[in-house]
Amino acid sequence: MSEYDRKSIDMHEEMHGKLAVQSKFPLTTREDLSTAYTPGVAAVCTEIHQNPERVFDLTIKKNTVAIVSDGSAVLGLGNLGAEASIPVMEGKAVLFKSFADIDAFPICVATQDVDEIERTVRAIAPVFGGINLEDISAPRCFEIEERLQDLGIPVFHDDQHGTAIVVHAALLNALKVAGKDLADCKIVFNGSGASAIACAKLILSAGTIGRTSKVGDLILCDSKGIVHRGRTDLNPYKQQLAEVTNRDNVSGNLADAMRDADVFIGLSLADLVTQDMVRSMKPHPIILAMANPNPEIMPHLAHEAGAAVVGTGRSDFPNQINNVLAFPGIFRGALDANARVINDEMKLAAAEALAAQVIEPSPDRIIPEPLEKNVAEHIGVAVAETARKTGACR
Amino acid sequence: MSEYDRKSIDMHEEMHGKLAVQSKFPLTTREDLSTAYTPGVAAVCTEIHQNPERVFDLTIKKNTVAIVSDGSAVLGLGNLGAEASIPVMEGKAVLFKSFADIDAFPICVATQDVDEIERTVRAIAPVFGGINLEDISAPRCFEIEERLQDLGIPVFHDDQHGTAIVVHAALLNALKVAGKDLADCKIVFNGSGASAIACAKLILSAGTIGRTSKVGDLILCDSKGIVHRGRTDLNPYKQQLAEVTNRDNVSGNLADAMRDADVFIGLSLADLVTQDMVRSMKPHPIILAMANPNPEIMPHLAHEAGAAVVGTGRSDFPNQINNVLAFPGIFRGALDANARVINDEMKLAAAEALAAQVIEPSPDRIIPEPLEKNVAEHIGVAVAETARKTGACR
Repeated sequence: MSEYDRKSIDMHEEMHGKLAVQSKFPLTTREDLSTAYTPGVAAVCTEIHQNPERVFDLTIKKNTVAIVSDGSAVLGLGNLGAEASIPVMEGKAVLFKSFADIDAFPICVATQDVDEIERTVRAIAPVFGGINLEDISAPRCFEIEERLQDLGIPVFHDDQHGTAIVVHAALLNALKVAGKDLADCKIVFNGSGASAIACAKLILSAGTIGRTSKVGDLILCDSKGIVHRGRTDLNPYKQQLAEVTNRDNVSGNLADAMRDADVFIGLSLADLVTQDMVRSMKPHPIILAMANPNPEIMPHLAHEAGAAVVGTGRSDFPNQINNVLAFPGIFRGALDANARVINDEMKLAAAEALAAQVIEPSPDRIIPEPLEKNVAEHIGVAVAETARKTGACR
Repeated sequence: MSEYDRKSIDMHEEMHGKLAVQSKFPLTTREDLSTAYTPGVAAVCTEIHQNPERVFDLTIKKNTVAIVSDGSAVLGLGNLGAEASIPVMEGKAVLFKSFADIDAFPICVATQDVDEIERTVRAIAPVFGGINLEDISAPRCFEIEERLQDLGIPVFHDDQHGTAIVVHAALLNALKVAGKDLADCKIVFNGSGASAIACAKLILSAGTIGRTSKVGDLILCDSKGIVHRGRTDLNPYKQQLAEVTNRDNVSGNLADAMRDADVFIGLSLADLVTQDMVRSMKPHPIILAMANPNPEIMPHLAHEAGAAVVGTGRSDFPNQINNVLAFPGIFRGALDANARVINDEMKLAAAEALAAQVIEPSPDRIIPEPLEKNVAEHIGVAVAETARKTGACR
């Protein structure tokens, strides 16, 4: 075990985890007790029983988010189970609090059955104003999220959409830096997980819902090569994408896909992209290589091969594409607006608001740093406004 | 609506509920982010995956309790549903924090099906070190609690056992004041709800597990009169009690039961006990009249009729029997001792530790005040010690 790992474990052990529950109510007199608890609380219960919507005014619901995981895809570590996922979900709650003053609580479930997870989330929903799904493996994560969209509060799988929003924001600024227009761009995705699919869909929706011109072309690659309409091994989610991407229905491997592409977006594995592949792209290519912990190509190699902009998931290189930039602000906006769902328009508004936080995009700065102030606040305002405009509110 | 109710509602609205989630971890540098979240948290997850017991050291689990309700029996208000129960569960969490520094979180479930509630509690258990069941109607509460005893963490229905512990503590001191011995006492219970049954069982267990001499006799009354072995309308829980109470298997009404009794314990309805009934009891009778909001007999009437000691559930009379005196300390002790369950020995130890907080019991002081300092701490120490002695720990 590295010294760094040891230090992190020691810190978690010393603090017994990273969260505490705080009472907002002083409890010093008998009257305090009678107001916070019985008998005074009875009037509050009765009020909610008579006017159910009042639960958002009179309880913690409006500012409280459940971070739900089954531990089936914990970070890049795989299926570690519910207990081992708790430190991640606590960390996420720390970020919710620090960046957006949202009270988030980890709900790590001891089941990996889609029906059971759906039932559990429905059962616990009364206390929460939003549900953040996290570290649930594909394709179960798609199904769970889809089924829960009728819950009446936003249900948002951050591994998909949080990542998609930050990638989209980085792309918008990278296009400016490289002097490219989305409508003329050929974008190649490598990765077939939940986040890659969500990124591709969000970029496509940017065209279809009229916020920007349609993307030129988009090609998705998975471990078997280019996703095209002739393949018989695609899951329903990739099949669906095959219908609306890869205009010329080409086949081949990643190197074939990257030839004459403008943008490479990787959510796959280290070192899959060579300098020759970058050289085969259009001039001034954009490389967002987000494999963890090591990118598909190291930034200095990509730049040597002609990349105009390079982003990765790492904090030790410029342009860290980290979804902590998105989810606190998204939920802040959704909760503030009393949103029932987080729709595509809200996701795109979040991406645009995030991109706008960089006043003058440059090769070394297409996206704010993870700890920059007020990012969540700006995203929140844009998301809330869009929620209202698009009829997403209660 | 009374001015008092209005004030309570305003307070809840102004604060948007009574709880917040607090980050124990500062998040100011990139390094903080890397330790609390990725990549540093990965080592913590892996450690728990390899040594599952470490979840108690490295996460919030050891100090975190779920307050689970289905809203089917909210205070005395009835079946208001999950949302309307949230203010009570938040209040309970405030008390857990204030009295025992326990991080408790409300889990109000949108189902009243016993199987579903059981499944939900099992599903969410990974994050929690204990489960406090609350405001679930009888007899479902018995079944849910029983089924969950194998969960590996304490599952405790406070309406039953919290009340039973405080009543038992009050009784122990009241017996001293009245100069009576449990072994010679005839105790009459009125009330057939969860709390009355739990109180009766705990007093009986005080004899059977050798902490004190067996109780003289115990008679339970419900709305149909005395519970006896000839009745065919008893639910299984009352049937079970009928077998071990009412030595002479008498029948009749509450007035019949109270004749020559030493102790009356009411968890029923206002004004059911008359002065004549008190006069028909043995000399120096003990009256614990806990109907809410108005007792089975008002204290001054009971005293006029000869009662040696009177306790009620109300804060405006002496001897308020309030289960806030018990549950924070019980869970403090159970969590500190790594208890798997809260067994009868631990409940009795809690009652005795609570009774011992009153140095010199008197007619006006058989139980501490709800806001007295250190009560939970003393109970916690006794409960933890008893958990270890009785093999209740992991």
